[in-house]
Order: sequence, then C-alpha cells, then structure tokens
Amino acid sequence: MTTTEKPASPYQVVGTRPVRPDGVDKVTGRAEYGADIKLPGMLYGRVLRSPHAHAVIKRVDVSRALAHPGVFAVVTTADFPVLGNNPVPTIRGPIPERWTREALIADGKALYKGHAIAAVAASDPHVAEDALGLIDVEYEVLPPVLSIDQAISPAAPLLHDPAITADIKGLFDPIDGRQTNIARKLEIRFGDVEQGFADSDVVIEREFSTASAHQGYIEPHNATAFWNKDGLLTVWTSTQGAFGVRDALAGVLKVPVAKLKVVPMEIGGGFGGKIPVYLEPLAAVLSRKSGRPVQITMSRAEVFEATGPTSATQMRVKMGAKRDGTLIAGEVHLAYEAGGYPGAPVPGAARSALAPYNMPHHYVEGFEVVVNKPKVAAYRAPGAPQAEFAVESVVDELAEMLKMDPVEFRLQNASKQGVRRSEGVPHGSVGTQQVLQAARDSAHYRSEMHGDKIGRGVATGYWGNGGNESAAYASVNADGTVSLVTGSVDIGGQRAALAMQFAETLGIPYDTIKSTVGDTDSIGYTSNTGGSRTTFATGWAVIEAAYDIRAQLIARAAKIWDVEPEKVTYEAGVLREEGGQTMTFKEIARKLAGSGGSIQGRAAVKPTGTGAAVATHICDVHVDTDTGKVTVTRYTAVQDVGTAIHPSYVEGQIQGGAAQGIGMALNEGYVYRPDGSMANASYLDYRMPVANDLPPIDVILVEVPNPGHPYGVRGVGEVPIVPPLAAVANAIYDAIGVRVRHLPASPAFILEELERLKK
Amino acid sequence: MTTTEKPASPYQVVGTRPVRPDGVDKVTGRAEYGADIKLPGMLYGRVLRSPHAHAVIKRVDVSRALAHPGVFAVVTTADFPVLGNNPVPTIRGPIPERWTREALIADGKALYKGHAIAAVAASDPHVAEDALGLIDVEYEVLPPVLSIDQAISPAAPLLHDPAITADIKGLFDPIDGRQTNIARKLEIRFGDVEQGFADSDVVIEREFSTASAHQGYIEPHNATAFWNKDGLLTVWTSTQGAFGVRDALAGVLKVPVAKLKVVPMEIGGGFGGKIPVYLEPLAAVLSRKSGRPVQITMSRAEVFEATGPTSATQMRVKMGAKRDGTLIAGEVHLAYEAGGYPGAPVPGAARSALAPYNMPHHYVEGFEVVVNKPKVAAYRAPGAPQAEFAVESVVDELAEMLKMDPVEFRLQNASKQGVRRSEGVPHGSVGTQQVLQAARDSAHYRSEMHGDKIGRGVATGYWGNGGNESAAYASVNADGTVSLVTGSVDIGGQRAALAMQFAETLGIPYDTIKSTVGDTDSIGYTSNTGGSRTTFATGWAVIEAAYDIRAQLIARAAKIWDVEPEKVTYEAGVLREEGGQTMTFKEIARKLAGSGGSIQGRAAVKPTGTGAAVATHICDVHVDTDTGKVTVTRYTAVQDVGTAIHPSYVEGQIQGGAAQGIGMALNEGYVYRPDGSMANASYLDYRMPVANDLPPIDVILVEVPNPGHPYGVRGVGEVPIVPPLAAVANAIYDAIGVRVRHLPASPAFILEELERLKK
Repeated sequence: MTTTEKPASPYQVVGTRPVRPDGVDKVTGRAEYGADIKLPGMLYGRVLRSPHAHAVIKRVDVSRALAHPGVFAVVTTADFPVLGNNPVPTIRGPIPERWTREALIADGKALYKGHAIAAVAASDPHVAEDALGLIDVEYEVLPPVLSIDQAISPAAPLLHDPAITADIKGLFDPIDGRQTNIARKLEIRFGDVEQGFADSDVVIEREFSTASAHQGYIEPHNATAFWNKDGLLTVWTSTQGAFGVRDALAGVLKVPVAKLKVVPMEIGGGFGGKIPVYLEPLAAVLSRKSGRPVQITMSRAEVFEATGPTSATQMRVKMGAKRDGTLIAGEVHLAYEAGGYPGAPVPGAARSALAPYNMPHHYVEGFEVVVNKPKVAAYRAPGAPQAEFAVESVVDELAEMLKMDPVEFRLQNASKQGVRRSEGVPHGSVGTQQVLQAARDSAHYRSEMHGDKIGRGVATGYWGNGGNESAAYASVNADGTVSLVTGSVDIGGQRAALAMQFAETLGIPYDTIKSTVGDTDSIGYTSNTGGSRTTFATGWAVIEAAYDIRAQLIARAAKIWDVEPEKVTYEAGVLREEGGQTMTFKEIARKLAGSGGSIQGRAAVKPTGTGAAVATHICDVHVDTDTGKVTVTRYTAVQDVGTAIHPSYVEGQIQGGAAQGIGMALNEGYVYRPDGSMANASYLDYRMPVANDLPPIDVILVEVPNPGHPYGVRGVGEVPIVPPLAAVANAIYDAIGVRVRHLPASPAFILEELERLKK
Repeated sequence: MTTTEKPASPYQVVGTRPVRPDGVDKVTGRAEYGADIKLPGMLYGRVLRSPHAHAVIKRVDVSRALAHPGVFAVVTTADFPVLGNNPVPTIRGPIPERWTREALIADGKALYKGHAIAAVAASDPHVAEDALGLIDVEYEVLPPVLSIDQAISPAAPLLHDPAITADIKGLFDPIDGRQTNIARKLEIRFGDVEQGFADSDVVIEREFSTASAHQGYIEPHNATAFWNKDGLLTVWTSTQGAFGVRDALAGVLKVPVAKLKVVPMEIGGGFGGKIPVYLEPLAAVLSRKSGRPVQITMSRAEVFEATGPTSATQMRVKMGAKRDGTLIAGEVHLAYEAGGYPGAPVPGAARSALAPYNMPHHYVEGFEVVVNKPKVAAYRAPGAPQAEFAVESVVDELAEMLKMDPVEFRLQNASKQGVRRSEGVPHGSVGTQQVLQAARDSAHYRSEMHGDKIGRGVATGYWGNGGNESAAYASVNADGTVSLVTGSVDIGGQRAALAMQFAETLGIPYDTIKSTVGDTDSIGYTSNTGGSRTTFATGWAVIEAAYDIRAQLIARAAKIWDVEPEKVTYEAGVLREEGGQTMTFKEIARKLAGSGGSIQGRAAVKPTGTGAAVATHICDVHVDTDTGKVTVTRYTAVQDVGTAIHPSYVEGQIQGGAAQGIGMALNEGYVYRPDGSMANASYLDYRMPVANDLPPIDVILVEVPNPGHPYGVRGVGEVPIVPPLAAVANAIYDAIGVRVRHLPASPAFILEELERLKK
C-alpha cells in the first residue's frame, strides 16, 4: 500500500508513472551486463588472492603459471607503474598515491584474506583457475588485526609503515607520540556539551556495535578490457560511474584520459559498492601484456572477501534532555573499521548522527581504524545507518524514561530549516517535522497491536544528499522525438526520471524521449550515480539542455515566421507569435532540416542546493522467544522525497533501502574466524532477507519540494536505509524488553540476550 | 610522388599529416566491422534470391523451410507493412512508396536475378542455407530486358505496371501516348545549340557506351538486428550513414525513429554503394519473428548480383568549336540503365558533363531506363565518369582536329567563377584553370615518351560536391583533452580530418582530441558520408561546436577572474584578460569542475557554399598489340582540393578514385548472359586492378580555398574517379590510333578494334 500526500500537481509529466524503458530488456534477458560482452579472441582472467589476512609477501614466482598451456599473461604488482608516497585526494581525504595500486594488487604485504596478489589471463576460465595454483607465493604470516579493540591496543602490529604517511597531515598522525592503526580522527563540536549534560534532567549513555554488512548486489563485479597497440584502452564494466572508473584508471595506470574509454554496461545493483574499481586495472594490464581482450568476473566469495562492505563499528552515545522533553546535549563517539586501507565513512556518519534534531550542544568524535579485512566501500548513506542506530536507540530510551510517545518526543525536537545542524551550518529545506507528523498520523502508527511478544518501534534518519557534476546532450529528430544522452548510469530508474524532467520542461510527451546512457567518449563529464544525486543533478542538466533547445526553437520559429525573436514565446510545447500563428514542437521539428538544420541542446552543471532527506520508519515485530527469530510483521516508511518525479521508482528505492536496513538489523553480518578468514562468504551463509522474510513495505511519500531544484527534486535513494536498524531494535525492545545494542540481532543473539535478562 | 603547390600555411594543425586514429585497430584486426558483432542467442540469416531476371512469382511456400530443424523464422514480402502508390521522395525524385519494400523483397514479380524473395533465420549459416532450398517458389518466367536498346523497343515487356506510377508526374510518363521502360527524362538547355553548331567551324558527333561497374568494396554488406518485445529495434551495420539507415527502416517498417537505434560499425569501403539498405529490414523482421538477434552477411556473388553497381550507359556527344579553339556548342545525350527500379544517376551526370568548359550553347538530355538488372546505386561522383568519358573523348578529338595541345585547348575554354555552367547557374569558386595550368606545367606532362605503342592522354572532370546536415558534440575533459562526437561514418579519414578542424579552431594540439562516431541515439542528425560532403559539412559542425566552447570558455574565464566577459579574448588556445592575466586551454580545463562544471559544445549545421571540384589526369600507356593488353605506365592526378586538411588522406582519395576509374576504363564491367544472369560475379572473373596492375599514382594538390568554408575545404573524394576513363581512352588512341568508344577497353575489345582498323 502506498499513500501519497500531495496537492494537485502543476505538472504534466512529473509525478506520473510511465513504463520503465529498460523493463522489457531486463525481463527478457536481453539487457547487456558487463559479463555479456564477448569479443573476438577474448581471454578469461582470474585473480590469485591472499589466503592470509596479514602477511609479508616474500616472493611471487609466476613462471610455472606462465608456462602452462593456454595461459597468455600473468600480472603482479610489478606490472603497474611505480607510485610514491605523494598524497592524492579521495572522497574521505588524501592517501599516499601508492595505495591506489596496492589496494588493487598487493605489494610486499597482504592486508586481508582476499587481497589480490596476481592475475592470470587464459584461453578459458578453467585454465586460468588451474594456473592460479601454479603461482608460487612465499608468505611470512603475521598476526591479524580483526577488531577495533585489537587494532588500538598498544600491542597491535601496525598495518602500515608510518614512513609512508609521515608527510600527510591527518593520516595516521601519532597519538600521544605513538603510531597506531587509527587512520583519521574527526571532531564536530557545537555548543558546550559538558554544560549541556549538566543542564539536562535526564542523561543516558550507551554503547553499540555493528558487524560489517555487504551491499549484496546480485551481479558480481566484472570488467572487460582491451588495450590496443596504439595505447587506446577500452573498458566495459558494470559500474556506478564510467567517468569515475576512467579517473581511477588514469590515476593508477598513468594514462591520459583521452586514451581511455569506459563503457558502462547495465548494472545489477551497486548501492555504493560499484563505485570503486577492482578488476578493471587488472584486466587492462592483462590485455596489454597478452594483446587480447580480457574479461574477469568475480565469484560470489570474491565479492564478499575482496570488495568493500560497510564498516563494522563500535559506538557510544550520550544524550541529555529536560524533563519536558527538550533535547539539550548529544555526544557521539564513532569508531569505524576501514579494512586494510583508510576510507571508512566516518564523515557522513558524523554529520548525520544528530541531524534529525535540534539541540544546543553537540559533540561528535569519529575514528577510522584499519584492520585486516577488506577495505570498506560506500553502502547507501554510508556510515549513517550505524550511527543512527545508536542515536535512535538512545532517543527511544529517553522517550521511554520521559514517558513520552517516541514520535511526539522526536517531533518536539525535530530539526528545521534555518536551525543549525551538527557542523554548525543551518539546515536548508528539510522535512523532518512534516515526516514525523505524517508518521504520527499514519494508519500504521495509529493502529493497535494485538498478541504476545509483539512490539512496535520507530526511528528517524537523515542524509545530506549530493550534487556534483552532470552533463546532458539532446538532439531533436525530424519526427518530433528527441534522443537524450546523459552520463548517469541507470541503477534506480534514471533513464525515465531524466526523460520525464526533460519532457516536462519542453512540454512534450514522455514517450517521445529516448533516454540513453553514454560512454566516456560520448557525453560530458558526469559524476557517479551515487550520493542520491542523479535525479537531482543530472535532472538539472537535462532541464538546462531543454532550455538550450527552447531558446534555439524560439530563434528558429522567428526565422521561419520572419519576425523578431522577442515576438515569439514557447510554452507547453507550443511556439506562439505574439498575436499570431502557432507551431507545435512536433511541427517545427519537421521544419528544422529545411530551415538551417537540426537543433541540439547541451548542458554541463554542478548544482548546489541539494536538499537533505529525512525518513521515519515504523516497524512491528513478533519475536519467537524459543528460537530467537524476529519476524517483521508490518512496516511503513515515511519519507520527505521532495517532488517525486516517478513515484513508482521512488517507492522502489524506499522499499529496497528498508529491506536492506532490516537485513542489517536482523541477519546480515560478516562472521570472521580467528585467522581473519570469513566464515560466511556465500549467500547460503550470509543471510540477506528474501521476499518471504518481509511483509509488504508500505510507503508514505511526503513531498516537500526542494527549493534548490526547478521541480523540487531531492535525493531519495539513500536515507531509507538509515532508520530500519533502530526501528527494528526499538520494536524488539517493545516486544520482549531486550535493548538490542549489537547488530545483527540474529536468533542466537536474541536467545543470549534473553538468557542474560533472566539472570 | 606527391607535389603540393601551396603557400606558407596560416594554420597550425590543418595541412599537417598526423597518424590516423583508426590505423592500429585496422592493421591489428581489432576494428569492429558489422560482421564482428556477436550477440547471445544470435541467429544467422540467408536470403533466397530469384534465379530469373524477370519472372512473375506465382506462389511462395515456406512451410517446408519453417519445419526444418534449426530454422527459427522465415520472412517474405507478406511480413512487411503494405505500402501503396503514394509518392515518397528519393534523391533522384519521387517513387511509389511500395517500391521501397519491393526493392528489398520482391512482391509478385522478380525484376532481376538476385532479387530477394524470402529470408531465413537459423541456428547457423549452413542450416539457413539448407533451408533456402526448402522454400518452394513457382515462377512464370518472362523475357528479360537487358539493354537500353531492348528496353526502349516498342516490343519490350514493361517492367512496371503503369497504374502504379500513373499519379506521379515525371515518372514513366507516356511517350507519344505509349508506356515505355523510360523512367524519367531530364533536359538542360542553355543558349541555342543548333545556332551554336551552325556558328562552329568544326563539329564532331560520336557515340559511346559503358558497362556496369561495381564499387568493389572489400567488405560485403552485413546487418545485425535485434527487435525487442517492447518494440525497440537496434541495428548494427556497416553503412555510409546510420541516420540514412534509420530513415529507411522507419519508412519501410513504419516504425517511429524513436524506436530505432542504428549503430554504424567500421566500414570496409562504400563508394556510394553502402548508402542503400538491403539486409537491414530483412534482419529486423526475422528478429521480430524469431525473438532473437539475427545477422545476415552477403556472399561476394550476392554483392555483385543483388546490390547496386553503377549504370551501364549509351551516350552521344556532339560538340562544335571555332578554328581558333573556342568551344561554341555542346550537345549531350545520356541514356543510363537504372536496373529494376528507377534511380539512375542521370542528374549528376547531366550537370557535370559540360561543366569544365565555357561555351555559349548547351543541350543535355538524359534518360533513365529500367532493365532487368540490379537497381543501380551511387558510385563515387555518380554518373559523371561515364558522361565525362564521352565528352572528354570528343574534346580530345576536337583538339587533335584543331592541331592544338589538348591541355591548352581545355585551358582556353576552362570554366571559371561567375561564368554560367550547364544549368544556367554561374560557377562558384572553381579551380579549373589552376588545375589545367598545373597539369600543363607538371613534370609528367612536360616529359617526353620513348618507345613503341606508347601514348599519353589527358582528361578533365568536374563534380559539384554536397552539403546537407551534420551535427557535432564535444566535451572538455579536466586534463585539457576533448571528446568529439560526430555522426559521420569514417570511410576516408573523417575522424582525423574533423578532429584537426576542431583543434585548429580552438588552438589546441590535434592529439588531445579523441574523435569518435556516434550512433543514432547519441548524436544529432547527420546525413550520409557521401557526396564529398563530410570534411566540408561536418567540418563546419565541429568548427561551430568549437565556437560554442570558445564562447563558454571566455564567459568562464571572466567568472574566474571576476571581470567583464568583454575584457576576455581567446586566441590560439590562450585566454587573455585585457592587459592582464592569461590562462591556457589546458589550465582552464582543470578549473572547470571547480567553477561551475565542465563545458560542452554542440552544433547542427546545413551549410551551403559547397565548392565544386575539378581534376585533370595525365595517363601514359603501353599497348601490347599482340594480346590487346593496355598497361598504364605513368599516371598523374592534378586536382583542386581546396584546403587539404590532412593531405595524406586527400592523396589517398585521389589515388583510390584514379585506380577505380582506370579499372572502369580497362577491365571492370558486368558481363550478362542472354538469360540475364551475370557471368562474372566473383573477383576472379570481375577484374579489378590490383596493386601490381598500376604504377604509383602521382598526385598534384592544387589548393584553391573554398570561400564557403572557414578553412577553405572543398570535397575531394569523388571527382578523382571522373577523368581516368577518358584519360586512358585518349592515351590508347595516342598509342595505337584506336578511338575507344566503349568501356571497358578489355584486351579482347582492343584486339577487335585493331582488327577493324586493318580492314
């Protein structure tokens, strides 16, 4: 069931639900994913990975593998350009350039089980697999560092040589004169938090932890590369951003971007995890060495062990309130595992943690800690679900102590436009209050529950959303249809959502727009599909491209009518001469060739004005206290989605995000053995919720238009994963009185907690 | 040897000879031609073709073929939309719409041996081939019409039902009340030609004929199609124009262009012959019926028998001159075979025939005649080589009679700007005089010949060149490189020639431009690569796109420097603040993302101002009078090429055109049996000149810039095929006294003529 709270729409196309353009291709199996590419003479690559979580690599001898029949090339780190310690920027801060290579293929040291050591290209995948066994590697196994506690203990071995990062301020800075595995520390301070706690009537402090969870996209990573003799490298890959892959390849291979072409294939899920490159540079160098195209596809175990899940975390939250329910102070301590190399999503977590609420005193401190696990990657609102789990659990407990309805308590403290959020910057347009009101007034929240061991929880989440660069190009066809090209990989419906904004702007029907995704040679620079930015920022680009066309149409109509352009207007798909004749878009399209040639629109934008996203989820559970199994019986997600361009896609994003969050709450988590190997690297053992694990997820769309976008778009894709962790945990408490402070709340964990309660 | 007559260049990039961007791909076998496409589940198609040149198709029964294991679909004309007699425009005039289908797949009547009757899609090409034998076709064989004489005789059967064309004026109009096989008649009249002949001191009238010749591209026609359940049809094909294929498919399949995507693959030669569609609609409908991708590739015999060669012709030329060498009058009668359907290149032939010369009185009459042979297609300067063969043979004979040097005689009468050409329109910029002067002054022409049975001939040719629609899109990368997309299929070096004009306009290095060819979804409408238009018209488009970028760079620099845009100039790749700071293209490229986003340029143009092309060729031959074999011993092509953007490509065009013209002069010609079957449908029997048949072809580039283009470009690709026919014929006369008035002048023909001389 979906409820939309929405006034009469001023739009013709925006807000409708046309059929998705990629649907038929996908259901008929004709959509081309990366692994569908087949090229003449193509070889198959496989990657040798470290069996040890922490080891010195003393020797790699590939000679037996190279001599194996059917093997065409073997690469090790020695086949890549030597990179030094100079800092290069990343989204989470500068790192030594050498790590861009070492994270791809180990050099001297393996930092996690699964770290790539070498790669082979052979005539078929089985030969390649066989050849991996012929690569002789001599390891000196080191004790693995597998938790934050272990990592920060003075006895812990250091993963990285301090000399490498010595010149990069803020990265592995010594603490009290001692080198540690703490990569970075971040602090956000606002007001005086100690004074705040002193002024509070109630103060709670709690500790939390979460396990690593994987994005769990269905399609494994893949890359196909052909590096021709003239130095032109073409890469086909399922990625969230072809230009991001191009940038990464240019950096690690030291090739100018004009020599690179990245072709984004259809993508079977990403959720942030298909932003980094893993296989592309290996396939590229194998191709250069073999002179043939090379394709590598990961197994599911490789996806788990060698790509980036989200961080495991340890958190502590202290919050204080007045007896009247006014929040006064919040202190959040976040320690996030980064895996083998820095890059944990601490900044996003820190900025989001307290953002749903107003309170005069904040302090957030975040640590990024390296451990012998795969380097983490972005995962939908990176970092925020964990932090919000901690904060929203404490908020729930405060409401209970204050004997307030948990939604009313939140509403009383809800953040609003103009009031400062954590960093000290005032909130822009933010729908926290409207969302909480809609949750409070929802049929679900007003319903009564009946039965035993049942409970209801609510939680709110915040995510800032992104802007960044986008390009669009559109050409008008003689029959009045339009070809629209953007650089935004379509994961969640971008082709439709962009065509709709374009059609709306020109006042022409949606189904006259053919919306496609260009490769890096055929469209201007466009940042990743991620950060909930695409419908917003690439939307801006297509609107600007439509403006560009509109201006040219007016000029052309003036030429055709032989009047001044100032006398011509364009509205709702019709050109109109002041007090005179008219011409529809379709009519003038037919006349373009005969009046000077066709018309194209183009735009490259980097918009600010991204609107923040807020969601409140309501979750009902039943807990089987014999087995420890928690069943979600009813679930409603309420979210400020700005203007919903294509409501079905928006609902899909929300339902998908909620399902993933419920998975992190109840089942999903990396399980490590003491040697640092993963005990559940398969979909049989790593338990994601499937359709029959979940009830239908109801969605309430609250549309608070973002004033920073012509149609009021705000990003919708990430925030729905933020509230479920705490909503489920709070519901479990409501059902059985167990305050869940570690996730996943698996049946075993629930049973242990119930045992603990009995004592 | 190549000689360039050229002043010091004002250009940095234009006129240089950078390495071609597609070279490595092609020599390493990595370039992707149409037949290289392999799609999952792809079927292979084969076409059943009529064994009769003229026959009524009484019945087609595909049931046995359909039942054959491995056959997935069979199509006949019944699977295509029914089209009526309404006129649709073509480049040579309107035709009944039904013929767009019937030319692809016969309906009721087969009009030439090779006419498609049905097509099969099967799991492999051999199964498809076998299945063709299981299609039962009942024919009523009609007498074939195989020559112009036959076609116009009152006893000839009519190929087409007059009722079909009754409503299309100018098409099969009755002559003296009688229906004929003459499809169209064209007349160009200027002055009073009878008065002109009366005023002449010398008048010659001669008859000529030529055989059909094929373009002889190495790569056979191919098409791969996938028509998905949602109605989206994608076609991959080696074509001279993806948008032309899209238009043709939209017309014959009645599908809106927004449902069509045509991907132009690399192309192994076209010369005009890869403008029409043959296989694409068949593959498309086979795909729709089978639900699978379908690929069809022609055999060489199919290329000869079922695609369009140039017209066989019968011509008569009468010219008169004063004793002082002044041309007074010219009368040209052209009869061109069209094949089974109208479309012979009479207009171009008629316009070119007398265009090299000034003379006060002209009359050109042209007839298009249908015969039971494959429908002709464009072939490099379509129609002009034949017409100019006739005219230039007569001009040679006139010069001889007047005892004038043949070049001086031509020079005395050379056309020039502002003087009217045949149609009565004054010539624009035309380099006839400069070309003839360069030929006269050339080392070749001034050299003496020594030996027996040797001779020298010269001839001049004219071609008008085309303009039409082109689009370009370019995006600036952060490292200062640029991605440039156009819609012009690259046959003769367009990627380089366009990148060079773009680089010149922005004052940046050529090798920073990555120039690619877009498909119909990714770039604006662009007409075919043909008519010598691409370097000219798409050149205009890339220049306009560069202007678009330049304007935005100036605005951006002003923003970065915080000055008025009027204070900023851009020249030679450098932005300059009036009396202040500077910034190179590369420097500002790096700053774009941080100052509002990247920059793109776009343009769609339809330029006029195409410059005409003129060439004079000098040919030395030796004739073996025992065998009749003619050997070209030295050959020089002199041509006004406007500004040569990339001189090596220009020379390549000229050398290739000359080689094809020599082939038409000496060896190439369709040989028909009385039943209308082709006796030489293979490269063993259809004798094209190969490298060791020809001497090196020297090129003299005369650069008379075209004032209708910013860099003076004029089309260069077609005119070089025009002079060789007469140049060779005139050389043979000079060697052995035989006036060759039929081509090809094969050894057998030469021996016969020698026999005739003896009598």
